[in-house]
Amino acid sequence: MLTVNAYAAVSATEPLAPVTIERRDLGPRDVLIEIKYAGICHSDIHHARGDWGPQTYPVAPGHEIAGIVTAVGSEVTKYQVDDRAGVGCMVNSCRECASCRKGEEQYCLRGMIPTYGAIDVDGTLTQGGYSTHVVVNEDFVLRIPEGIGLDVAAPLLCAGITTYSPLRRFGAGPGTKLAVVGLGGLGHMAVKHAHAMGAEVTVLSQSLKKREDGLRLGADHYYATSDAATFEELAGTFDLIVNTVSAKLDIDAYLSLLAVGGTLANVGAPAEPLPLNAFSLLMGGKNFAGSLIGGIRETQEMLDFCAEHGYGSDVEIVPAEKINDAWERVLASDVRYRFVIGTATLA
Amino acid sequence: MLTVNAYAAVSATEPLAPVTIERRDLGPRDVLIEIKYAGICHSDIHHARGDWGPQTYPVAPGHEIAGIVTAVGSEVTKYQVDDRAGVGCMVNSCRECASCRKGEEQYCLRGMIPTYGAIDVDGTLTQGGYSTHVVVNEDFVLRIPEGIGLDVAAPLLCAGITTYSPLRRFGAGPGTKLAVVGLGGLGHMAVKHAHAMGAEVTVLSQSLKKREDGLRLGADHYYATSDAATFEELAGTFDLIVNTVSAKLDIDAYLSLLAVGGTLANVGAPAEPLPLNAFSLLMGGKNFAGSLIGGIRETQEMLDFCAEHGYGSDVEIVPAEKINDAWERVLASDVRYRFVIGTATLA
Repeated sequence: MLTVNAYAAVSATEPLAPVTIERRDLGPRDVLIEIKYAGICHSDIHHARGDWGPQTYPVAPGHEIAGIVTAVGSEVTKYQVDDRAGVGCMVNSCRECASCRKGEEQYCLRGMIPTYGAIDVDGTLTQGGYSTHVVVNEDFVLRIPEGIGLDVAAPLLCAGITTYSPLRRFGAGPGTKLAVVGLGGLGHMAVKHAHAMGAEVTVLSQSLKKREDGLRLGADHYYATSDAATFEELAGTFDLIVNTVSAKLDIDAYLSLLAVGGTLANVGAPAEPLPLNAFSLLMGGKNFAGSLIGGIRETQEMLDFCAEHGYGSDVEIVPAEKINDAWERVLASDVRYRFVIGTATLA
Repeated sequence: MLTVNAYAAVSATEPLAPVTIERRDLGPRDVLIEIKYAGICHSDIHHARGDWGPQTYPVAPGHEIAGIVTAVGSEVTKYQVDDRAGVGCMVNSCRECASCRKGEEQYCLRGMIPTYGAIDVDGTLTQGGYSTHVVVNEDFVLRIPEGIGLDVAAPLLCAGITTYSPLRRFGAGPGTKLAVVGLGGLGHMAVKHAHAMGAEVTVLSQSLKKREDGLRLGADHYYATSDAATFEELAGTFDLIVNTVSAKLDIDAYLSLLAVGGTLANVGAPAEPLPLNAFSLLMGGKNFAGSLIGGIRETQEMLDFCAEHGYGSDVEIVPAEKINDAWERVLASDVRYRFVIGTATLA
């Protein structure tokens, strides 16, 4: 066992606190990663606070992990010491079901093993990236290409792949009229990816506050959804809308912005039910789709794509002692566009 | 002008009554069809009663029309006298927009012209199939192949194409695990089509009352949705579910029956909003799609497919004076599986 420093939720209601957690001894196919940066994802807060079900405490959140390999198990073939490595939302899956065989481990029929707050194959509680080291089976480790800083790479492991996957699945590319709803951690990655893929990108944000940023990130157009004229002007426009907002939206209104045969792909996860009118789908043969992160193979493809196009996430680096403040700012949407913990400050 | 007998709604609340209506003089590209049979679609009742918006009265419903060509305009090339002809839900569209150019006239961006209750290109109110004759531009006339009776062909023009189109679009075929929700006019056609396409077909009906029928129509399995065990047993099973029910359903429950990446295609049109949980789509990367009838080209393809596979609709033929009774029976789901008016009784 390796005892390592971490920042963890100790209950559903208290602030995160410095703790030590244990990492399993390196199995033959395990990789030990010294974590350099860990992104803060809005879902960390939901999980830690029990919004999505009861948790076991203490639990260190964090599923946007970037670091350096410092040891490998005896049978590891994919990684060696000093490799730049990442870990995302999963650390294992059954590897045998139809989804795993297709490389869609996120949809493992027996349930993939989330990076924190879940029971691992060895019976222990998984612990996330708000810590100094992590031990992960090599099949769930990603290679971070040279040319992307580890700090700006970390958020790619969740925000990056979550937005990349539906863009690929629904064919974003040159000629695609695409909208991104919400310019936060996920939304800013959706804009960067879609722009790099060659789509014509429109940001639909509550206000025009982040307009300059949106255009700098690669958007061609920027509209405020608080302005009812937006919905009139853009009716029937988009082939694909990626909704990154985890609050209750007027789904019918967004479906009205789709062109015939278009898709509204939801990666946001609002807790409340979303009412929609069947006519909004019938008229125009439209789709309302969901997408959850992405598989390991596609995550590697996304990292390579980002490196090739020379971008990572836009980040603000915070030290360990500022994690609780950062969470408050995430809840207030006061981040451009992802907090990343410099985990050296946990030492 | 041609004055013809019809059965029409004279107000939103009164029974249908025999009336005469006028058909325009044959234009150079028009076809005059002597209607032999006209199907009764549930939507006829919604339209006539103003459930979907105010109507102009009197209006003869009916958009499942099968008959014989008795005259053609001077420039008509596609049809000649004595041809077996059908008319579905549309009698015209702009022919210029992106949808029309793709052969998806039902999604015409300027609005297709419904077969009844709409303003036609000549400024008159369109009148439907509950009448003895209809005049339609040849581009919106379908050819009914030899080998399908005109009586069993009539419902193909709406119920048939409405179910055929999503089955094709979402790839129903050998190897597809497919469910049809609701065994009514639409549902029984979905079962026949899907079986003919080679899919493994399950009917999900409220009760097991129509089980024998379902299996005879081509279903491989039949389950009652009133039995909660159905949802447990079939969780994660289907690649495609076609929902033909126009009442409010528990969409989350039906999404839970989809396999990873599966699609719930809605052809039913409930008036009330359908609440759904975003997680039902995210977990498993699922789709909730809508589909509205089909284009003219696809409707012809469907008619040819039915003829090739030797099936039409299962019908009960009613005379004009029984139309009001038939409507009551449609509302009570007491029809196996489509009423068809023998329009000779209008004479």
